Amino acid sequence: MASKKKVALVGATGIAGQQFVAALADHPWFEITRLFGSSRSAGKTFGDAIRDEKTGARRWWCEVEPSAELSAMRVDNSADFDGDGVDVVFTAIEADVARELEPRLAKKVPVISTASAFRYEDDVPILVPGVNGDHARLLTVQQKKRGWKGYVTPIPNCTTTGLVIALKPIHDAFGVQKVIVTSMQGISGAGRSPGVVALDIIDNIVPYIPKEEEKVARETKKIFATLGEGGLRDAGFVVSATCTRAAVIDGHTESVFVSTENPATPEAVAEVMRAFDGGSSLPSAPKRWIIVHDDPFRPQPRLDRDAEGGMATSVGRLRTDPVLDNGIKFVLVSHNTKMGAAKGAVLVAEQLHTQGML
Amino acid sequence: MASKKKVALVGATGIAGQQFVAALADHPWFEITRLFGSSRSAGKTFGDAIRDEKTGARRWWCEVEPSAELSAMRVDNSADFDGDGVDVVFTAIEADVARELEPRLAKKVPVISTASAFRYEDDVPILVPGVNGDHARLLTVQQKKRGWKGYVTPIPNCTTTGLVIALKPIHDAFGVQKVIVTSMQGISGAGRSPGVVALDIIDNIVPYIPKEEEKVARETKKIFATLGEGGLRDAGFVVSATCTRAAVIDGHTESVFVSTENPATPEAVAEVMRAFDGGSSLPSAPKRWIIVHDDPFRPQPRLDRDAEGGMATSVGRLRTDPVLDNGIKFVLVSHNTKMGAAKGAVLVAEQLHTQGML
Amino acid sequence: MASKKKVALVGATGIAGQQFVAALADHPWFEITRLFGSSRSAGKTFGDAIRDEKTGARRWWCEVEPSAELSAMRVDNSADFDGDGVDVVFTAIEADVARELEPRLAKKVPVISTASAFRYEDDVPILVPGVNGDHARLLTVQQKKRGWKGYVTPIPNCTTTGLVIALKPIHDAFGVQKVIVTSMQGISGAGRSPGVVALDIIDNIVPYIPKEEEKVARETKKIFATLGEGGLRDAGFVVSATCTRAAVIDGHTESVFVSTENPATPEAVAEVMRAFDGGSSLPSAPKRWIIVHDDPFRPQPRLDRDAEGGMATSVGRLRTDPVLDNGIKFVLVSHNTKMGAAKGAVLVAEQLHTQGML
Amino acid sequence: MASKKKVALVGATGIAGQQFVAALADHPWFEITRLFGSSRSAGKTFGDAIRDEKTGARRWWCEVEPSAELSAMRVDNSADFDGDGVDVVFTAIEADVARELEPRLAKKVPVISTASAFRYEDDVPILVPGVNGDHARLLTVQQKKRGWKGYVTPIPNCTTTGLVIALKPIHDAFGVQKVIVTSMQGISGAGRSPGVVALDIIDNIVPYIPKEEEKVARETKKIFATLGEGGLRDAGFVVSATCTRAAVIDGHTESVFVSTENPATPEAVAEVMRAFDGGSSLPSAPKRWIIVHDDPFRPQPRLDRDAEGGMATSVGRLRTDPVLDNGIKFVLVSHNTKMGAAKGAVLVAEQLHTQGML
Repeated sequence: MASKKKVALVGATGIAGQQFVAALADHPWFEITRLFGSSRSAGKTFGDAIRDEKTGARRWWCEVEPSAELSAMRVDNSADFDGDGVDVVFTAIEADVARELEPRLAKKVPVISTASAFRYEDDVPILVPGVNGDHARLLTVQQKKRGWKGYVTPIPNCTTTGLVIALKPIHDAFGVQKVIVTSMQGISGAGRSPGVVALDIIDNIVPYIPKEEEKVARETKKIFATLGEGGLRDAGFVVSATCTRAAVIDGHTESVFVSTENPATPEAVAEVMRAFDGGSSLPSAPKRWIIVHDDPFRPQPRLDRDAEGGMATSVGRLRTDPVLDNGIKFVLVSHNTKMGAAKGAVLVAEQLHTQGML
Repeated sequence: MASKKKVALVGATGIAGQQFVAALADHPWFEITRLFGSSRSAGKTFGDAIRDEKTGARRWWCEVEPSAELSAMRVDNSADFDGDGVDVVFTAIEADVARELEPRLAKKVPVISTASAFRYEDDVPILVPGVNGDHARLLTVQQKKRGWKGYVTPIPNCTTTGLVIALKPIHDAFGVQKVIVTSMQGISGAGRSPGVVALDIIDNIVPYIPKEEEKVARETKKIFATLGEGGLRDAGFVVSATCTRAAVIDGHTESVFVSTENPATPEAVAEVMRAFDGGSSLPSAPKRWIIVHDDPFRPQPRLDRDAEGGMATSVGRLRTDPVLDNGIKFVLVSHNTKMGAAKGAVLVAEQLHTQGML
Repeated sequence: MASKKKVALVGATGIAGQQFVAALADHPWFEITRLFGSSRSAGKTFGDAIRDEKTGARRWWCEVEPSAELSAMRVDNSADFDGDGVDVVFTAIEADVARELEPRLAKKVPVISTASAFRYEDDVPILVPGVNGDHARLLTVQQKKRGWKGYVTPIPNCTTTGLVIALKPIHDAFGVQKVIVTSMQGISGAGRSPGVVALDIIDNIVPYIPKEEEKVARETKKIFATLGEGGLRDAGFVVSATCTRAAVIDGHTESVFVSTENPATPEAVAEVMRAFDGGSSLPSAPKRWIIVHDDPFRPQPRLDRDAEGGMATSVGRLRTDPVLDNGIKFVLVSHNTKMGAAKGAVLVAEQLHTQGML
Repeated sequence: MASKKKVALVGATGIAGQQFVAALADHPWFEITRLFGSSRSAGKTFGDAIRDEKTGARRWWCEVEPSAELSAMRVDNSADFDGDGVDVVFTAIEADVARELEPRLAKKVPVISTASAFRYEDDVPILVPGVNGDHARLLTVQQKKRGWKGYVTPIPNCTTTGLVIALKPIHDAFGVQKVIVTSMQGISGAGRSPGVVALDIIDNIVPYIPKEEEKVARETKKIFATLGEGGLRDAGFVVSATCTRAAVIDGHTESVFVSTENPATPEAVAEVMRAFDGGSSLPSAPKRWIIVHDDPFRPQPRLDRDAEGGMATSVGRLRTDPVLDNGIKFVLVSHNTKMGAAKGAVLVAEQLHTQGML
């Protein structure tokens, strides 16, 4: 590869943006050449922009440190950016900001977004590599329809990601019909401003995360949709979610009950899960996409969230469920800020690149 | 009431036994007159028996302090106890010990047990006041069959208790058909020797509690069984549980999905739950058996476990479930060591007393 | 007592204000007759004002529920309040707001404040009942100097409170010379908007609480000051604090090292602590002001914070310290939102009432 | 280096032993050739020996996985081992077992021990590389005196390690006179059988760790001792510790107050700390031995424990202390199971190797 694709990162200084910086450090195909933030950060170096305004204290939240080069890079005002001069844009911004900004950028350049703003539009796929790579074709439809040179392609909500990866081999082999899921989600997904308040979560479970359950149900069906002439046709199955917050830093745990079209034993499900390969040649891809545990005490978020660099989905407790028709039940753990956010978005970019879409 | 019923407490010095001491403090109908423990405690006063052998430090785990009188009471060896001299026995011991000891005592005196040893025998009811009070009649069958003057009547597993209370008004009004439940259980139920190890649960969820799921499924069906000529006939519905442990001190949170025979709106379920009265005249009974929250962020274990002295079941997030036939979903919180253990057992004794069985 | 003193509560709807509502429920001497809040709350009933604006969910943080009467009481805008019509005002507001508001109210009526705004002014005592009740005389000086009918009297920072109570009997008996303290503070003191962010404190210690250490040092010396003709003369001793935040809901734990003028054995210190009575006849006062534990594993915040209704200071691990001259070291636990905040302020009001100052 | 030194690991299957396996993976100088455990593990492969006997579940607690080769290695009974056939032994066993076993092995081979059994004997140094490397000479005295070909050299308690590293540059530059320290220790140091019980630590601080404070005081003075003709002469300074347990997985946080002989500003202390190099050429050594933070919110155990692979000591909050003569105060974080245990012991072995003692 002659030279790396030029990347602009929008929303660079927040916790989600920092995760992109970490995810793209020493990336073989991509390099960050532009950083964008709010007017508050604009004009500062990245190193200065991540300092607390009052105390001057550095606020960096990832294990991987930013390079000296990146720390010295200037952060520009995203309000002034139109997508010029880069090959791809990653956005780590709130939905309402994304709704204004992303179409402007997509006129010129592909935009890979962590925001939910465009997830539910007809010509917008929600890509999960290994699960619905063929939906990338919908981006061409989007470009034509909207007259854009680029496109907007959002990744799913972090609770959806692990679920669809675990369901994919089951769906292929046995046909998913119904899904009931209860999530116990880590707090890092909520960010830091203010994110989850400690007084609410220590020695506690919070049984509600606004809008989360609708997202999980809607996105799961869209991700498993069939892409035909008339666009996406939602998967025929129904999803019912109860999403809760637990006193866990990183990692979403999900208790899943599935009804399949054709009978499936726990052993057979374990086998197709272990055999599942969502594309391990991509640089950010896990070697093992799904790690199936026999130990009934696994998966646990603290022990399993970082498996395969936070990119694997860990599954355990595979059992027959007596309530649903052809019922199977299991527990999964997925890293919400790695596979479920920035690294997952980079993986989408890698797949689009191999598909000639970047 | 001329004089109080004499109570023997077996397993008095452990954490569960201490909760009985707290639950029976100043009780209007019952008074502890005998305390029993292992050979290690035998011969000591209760106040001495709850001291750590190495350090001499007092190990008392309840909010309510034992009276001076009780602290001075001698603990005897339960191996030497045959039930003489008391009106009722409460046991707070492990299942394997209970299997030997409880039948010996039941020859002479009613035994109300927190152990699982006899829960699944045909002539043993699992009583939950307000839910299946009529099953108390089975105790007469048990007495005849076994030739005992007393009987053994166990309370359910603490995860079952909240579930069956929440299901009772639904079952009466709409007919429960299927139940899927994921629990996020507090750590106190596991006791202290060693109970849950901190290294396993901080910043974590453990997706497995040995034997718990089978107990929940089996006990729920038995509690809702019909008592006829031939004994108990299990309720026709199926229960599927995934039981997990969370970093919560007290209180079990359960995410429940129910299929009913007749259609039920969330509003209708809220109404029958609020109207449910399991018998509020008993001394230990809550005024409100089920507290239904409209606030979607409730119930939370830390905020709701102590409602009505830990005896209420708190329910929230009542919604329609799209997966199950006539599906309803909700979240409940129940206090595992109060309604789910000692105070719940005392409530059973109170009910049996009003039924003339004590 | 013919009738109760009329109380206005300013900052009623926040977490600290709610604690005043709980602290004054069924109080024998005081009754809340006016509630004040920001313009956002003004005009609403208290019951409505504590609902979340977006979700309508009730946000009540105390164990004691507000009465129906209080829930129906109108909240007025504190900007329009001048102190008329009440006998005493309690404030639960930020320091910058207090700086403006409290002098206006103090022209007409005594103001008992949880804010730090006036703590360090020469004519303002920081009262802790049982420790420096005689400093109340300074309020008369304040009134004269400022030409006020009322006065402002702040309670100390919540970390100071437990420390000065534990030091008081030591100082009286042996003469405190030097104090080194490391605090491990609960998160509830930081409130909820946003208070402590969960991502910062789970599985963690935060070694810094802005301004806290200065407050502890300064207030401790002022509380032990001698009040003479020329006003307060600071105690001669020095205090050095390191204040940290721990993953504890309520309760501040402090590791204290003290140098005394006259030699003191741990036994002698335990004796004077146990004998200390800060005035147990006041309605909110603990029976035992200092509970001294022999068990080396105590005090613990979760087990000891609620001792005596959260009004006791629990001390343990009394030992000789080899570093300081006549060194003594111990650990204390004090409830930061009970004795350290609203209930402590009510206790101050009770003492002022018995001193004829209210 | 022609070939690697042969290592025997005693106590291989416990959590501390596993950390040695991780610390020695791909080590350039050492390779594990023998594994020893209790009779329960003896005869099994290492892979089998770390499985739970009841459930068969694998119990592995480190990030680094054991190699296939090591997993297949047989675990032998340590009771049958006399030190033959290896160049060095690492032990990860309890003090009472160490007292019997380590002298037997030391007759033939150097033993580097994490146990406290021999720490306080006159001819036994407590080595911390970079702090008291010259004490290694005492091992020759030990060999002569005891007639051993090998020796026993224990590492310090994990709470001592970070403290002595932070004190070393202060001592060299300004002369440490007095030390007061309050620790807030992570739970992993207590192991898992049962280690810290969750019920004791969630939402809590435990103010006592048996024997810990004596170890910290005694070891610190011994580590800074002067080695002369007559052996070690303890450093003249006094150390006073209060050791507490916090709800932190890994990492010990220590609030330290130091009195120095010559005056030292916080800036000067920061400078000598940053300049401190304990020997960065050793394979396990950190590049930066002490990381000094200007951000007052650092160090925090969750953010800083893994700095430099868990081998750095992180220091922050350097301030003047007004209580002690020439007082300096600061907060440090040190990884208790990396620098404070197995990796720290490997570092000792590396240093002894460069000193020709292995």
